[in-house]
Amino acid sequence: MTTKANSTPPFYQPPPTDKLRIAIDMDEVLADPVAKFMEIYRREHGYSYTHDQLENKEFREVLPPRISHTLREYINQKGFFRDLNVIPGAVEVVKQLCDKYDVYIVSAAMEFPNSLQDKLEWLGDHFPFISWTNIIFCGYKIVNVDMMIDDRIRNFIGFEGRKLLFTSHHNIGLTEYERVNTWEEVALKLL
Amino acid sequence: MTTKANSTPPFYQPPPTDKLRIAIDMDEVLADPVAKFMEIYRREHGYSYTHDQLENKEFREVLPPRISHTLREYINQKGFFRDLNVIPGAVEVVKQLCDKYDVYIVSAAMEFPNSLQDKLEWLGDHFPFISWTNIIFCGYKIVNVDMMIDDRIRNFIGFEGRKLLFTSHHNIGLTEYERVNTWEEVALKLL
Repeated sequence: MTTKANSTPPFYQPPPTDKLRIAIDMDEVLADPVAKFMEIYRREHGYSYTHDQLENKEFREVLPPRISHTLREYINQKGFFRDLNVIPGAVEVVKQLCDKYDVYIVSAAMEFPNSLQDKLEWLGDHFPFISWTNIIFCGYKIVNVDMMIDDRIRNFIGFEGRKLLFTSHHNIGLTEYERVNTWEEVALKLL
Repeated sequence: MTTKANSTPPFYQPPPTDKLRIAIDMDEVLADPVAKFMEIYRREHGYSYTHDQLENKEFREVLPPRISHTLREYINQKGFFRDLNVIPGAVEVVKQLCDKYDVYIVSAAMEFPNSLQDKLEWLGDHFPFISWTNIIFCGYKIVNVDMMIDDRIRNFIGFEGRKLLFTSHHNIGLTEYERVNTWEEVALKLL
């Protein structure tokens, strides 16, 4: 049972140095919270929205002001992130990216403390091939990677690598970034 | 209620660019799991250990082989990380570091999925001045910072900034790194 000082568990291998690193966001990139927002507000409040109505807006901005505060309450509920739909193509393409790149899932989950366990379990269900070593829940995405795939340009601030803006309703009007509309387009660019 | 496309919540400010960044580890740096190990094995199994017996060893290595597997079971239990003692001086010094540096708490918490909520609540209790934006739970510590304070040299692999090895029983014999034995010594070096 004796091993050398400061030995690490046998499964511990440092991250590979021969692959480029990609940071992939969760919400609106791998997972679809907006579909759940639409379902909740249709069912609980009787409001229906088309995707056109959401263009260049945050979801809270299309809600009637008297109920817009409820959005954050739904998001903060335990379980909110546990059953989100997977964005089409994400599983297949991320799996292939993992062969070629060192892939990290990087989510600003700390903003919603109740989301941590839900998000981790959701990843275990849909992306079981992502090791715990490659999952990062944070606030600021100060990650040392070569590429980021994200729907929020605020996460690109200060990042010097390649930035791929994943299309979501709120960012449709932005033109300053390299854009990917679907996971199929990510595959075409990176595989 | 209308705001510009892709507006960010009013509280969102990008990380400061005029301060050096420090990543500070949690276990055996801010929090003391070893004191809890010692208490559990004394109370539940009747084994007492001195700090001398732990030198240059992982805690599981000093346990009798027939019970060494139980350590991981205790760590995986919900609540294990919720009531750990704070390492002496950590709160006061980290608070002062926050004035001078952009301080991130970076924990490899993903290895123990049940620890996430406990660790976040523990930080909220003892380090309420650390914003959610500056907390990172990960596996590999691929963080873009200038300094790291950590008790595990595996987290220094590939990191090019200043590495401060925080003394813990398992790393006592290592001589290759700049060492800090206490939070008082961190203050002397960095404040």
